[in-house]
Amino acid sequence: MAAIKFELIKTCKQSGARLGKLYTPHGVIETPIFMPVGTQATVKAMTPEALKEINSQIILSNTYHLYMRPGHKLVEKAGGLHKFMNWDRPILTDSGGFQVFSLGPLRKITEEGVEFRSHLDGSKHFISPEKATEIQNSLGSDIMMVFDECAPYPADRDYVKNSLERTTRWAKRCKDAHKNPDRQALFGIVQGGMYKDLREQSAREIMEIDFPGYAIGGLSVGEPKHLMYEVLDYTTPLLPKDKPRYLMGVGSPDDLLEGVIRGVDMFDCVLPTRIARNGTAMTSQGKVVVRNAKYAEDFTPLDPECDCYTCKNYTRAYIRHLVKANEILGSTLITHHNLYFLLKLMENVRKAIMEDRLLDYKKEFFQKYGYEI
Amino acid sequence: MAAIKFELIKTCKQSGARLGKLYTPHGVIETPIFMPVGTQATVKAMTPEALKEINSQIILSNTYHLYMRPGHKLVEKAGGLHKFMNWDRPILTDSGGFQVFSLGPLRKITEEGVEFRSHLDGSKHFISPEKATEIQNSLGSDIMMVFDECAPYPADRDYVKNSLERTTRWAKRCKDAHKNPDRQALFGIVQGGMYKDLREQSAREIMEIDFPGYAIGGLSVGEPKHLMYEVLDYTTPLLPKDKPRYLMGVGSPDDLLEGVIRGVDMFDCVLPTRIARNGTAMTSQGKVVVRNAKYAEDFTPLDPECDCYTCKNYTRAYIRHLVKANEILGSTLITHHNLYFLLKLMENVRKAIMEDRLLDYKKEFFQKYGYEI
Repeated sequence: MAAIKFELIKTCKQSGARLGKLYTPHGVIETPIFMPVGTQATVKAMTPEALKEINSQIILSNTYHLYMRPGHKLVEKAGGLHKFMNWDRPILTDSGGFQVFSLGPLRKITEEGVEFRSHLDGSKHFISPEKATEIQNSLGSDIMMVFDECAPYPADRDYVKNSLERTTRWAKRCKDAHKNPDRQALFGIVQGGMYKDLREQSAREIMEIDFPGYAIGGLSVGEPKHLMYEVLDYTTPLLPKDKPRYLMGVGSPDDLLEGVIRGVDMFDCVLPTRIARNGTAMTSQGKVVVRNAKYAEDFTPLDPECDCYTCKNYTRAYIRHLVKANEILGSTLITHHNLYFLLKLMENVRKAIMEDRLLDYKKEFFQKYGYEI
Repeated sequence: MAAIKFELIKTCKQSGARLGKLYTPHGVIETPIFMPVGTQATVKAMTPEALKEINSQIILSNTYHLYMRPGHKLVEKAGGLHKFMNWDRPILTDSGGFQVFSLGPLRKITEEGVEFRSHLDGSKHFISPEKATEIQNSLGSDIMMVFDECAPYPADRDYVKNSLERTTRWAKRCKDAHKNPDRQALFGIVQGGMYKDLREQSAREIMEIDFPGYAIGGLSVGEPKHLMYEVLDYTTPLLPKDKPRYLMGVGSPDDLLEGVIRGVDMFDCVLPTRIARNGTAMTSQGKVVVRNAKYAEDFTPLDPECDCYTCKNYTRAYIRHLVKANEILGSTLITHHNLYFLLKLMENVRKAIMEDRLLDYKKEFFQKYGYEI
């Protein structure tokens, strides 16, 4: 039996947006969904209970980081990642590919895999498609990702073509190495950079291998936003309607909305948690850099329209004080709010799809949020 | 009407320990009690809800730090410290004296007060007894402390005598400057170093001024433990039975027990929260330095006898991983446990006093905890 099942409930009549349900071994996820990132087996500054309070349906964790520390074998001994980190809802793990490729001069790519040095202690390691699969099997995530090569932007056509073809060969090896297809779903990843024919080639090759879900990789890597939307415009229609689609590394409100409109079901990004720890809140009126002096005596909530724990109980003045004083609670309160903000946005998006008015909703949202559209 | 009322419920027949109730404008505190420290208007790594979950009845906050940042006038504008930090239970503020005297070469003491430079930006400030009182009036704490001079250890008799006499004169000035005696209780502080006759002199002078509660200052400043216990032995009997007694800056389990046995009702210390952030847990078997390698694959709780949130849900292996990875959740989980451990200890102490068996309880506790007694 397959580990997951995707049910397409409806498609928005105003846009290409899809409303769905993804059944996983650790519960059902309503899509489209944003996944908070818990890089090192914890979503920074949040307890699992706080994540549930804001209705996080699924979180993402990073294979590279957990392989480096504490090690996948230790997590396996602990009873798997869910038990280790006290999270009983679904978990998606990436393949480690993106992190390893980001190491730059510290890594060397061959057909067999990637040799690299640890960012922690400089020790030498090797991750192959088989190894990335083994690690994720040990972690026990509900959704695993194939070990792919994410081409940088800009990159010339030949580089991207070679890279996507290797990604195809690696995807096949990951599928062959996967030990628990009945308990963990392995997603394929479509690469191809900003080249339409290469995206078509990649989608065709990856779909031939056949996966229970497909990610679109190689976007949000520095290209202009319009280019990302253009790639999505021609890539999502290539993917099967009855499988979930995941746009990796995307999490700004505008990108989430544009992605959903183009038929994407799942997203993840460190953005909301990372900017929180720098003292920046995402609000219905746009970003609020609460560490700024102008908020020193502002006794209103981070977002006056928000009903999250942070906004119900704390003022900008207090949160600014915490941020200035380097207090942990500052990171906790803004992280809580930012994740709530994105999860609430996705809830509103699902509602708008149900009502066939996602384009109207997008317009309303951006009018307040202050983006040009 | 007085801001607080102290009810002495009973005295342990095995020891001098007292069971009491302290009625404050923000609720009733069962004594003896340990007060978690929220230096900068937050108990580090804890939300107010988490503090309530572990039954924190009262917290302490620091006048010096809040005066420096964000400023007492800002806190007053926010509606007072309770509202500012979202804490509706009692708060005790110190006077800032201890912090200012700790600045060493950055401060200059005169009869009028203390001139010092900020630890944040080097700016020049002056705190007098009147100023310390004004700041605490602005903060709106339930219990305020007089601005005293805490003599260092060791200190010669003349220094200590001069210092305690100034503390008496300053205590009088604080009482005179206090604007809200019906809403905020101002406690006197007995000084006198390690000299019995000076402790007697200080107690007599401070009690003559008449305060609703008395602290014992100048202990836990580097002297050997037996000396602290000796000073308590002859100091607490000098204090009135019908007023609460507060031993400042004390928070190790042995000192708490020895203090209670000698008739102390209230304690505070940064110890449990500070060592938590360094990866050290207080447990029924003594300290556990969870960052140590030997806990890497220890899948038991921090304290197998503990039923706190941390111990019910997380292993030493996971917490060690968080600490090693500098994850905020590591600080949060250990802080939660350490505070729970001390608050639970005080709950057990109250129970043992009620049952006239505190010395038996002390023996049982230390047999496990591993201290020499």
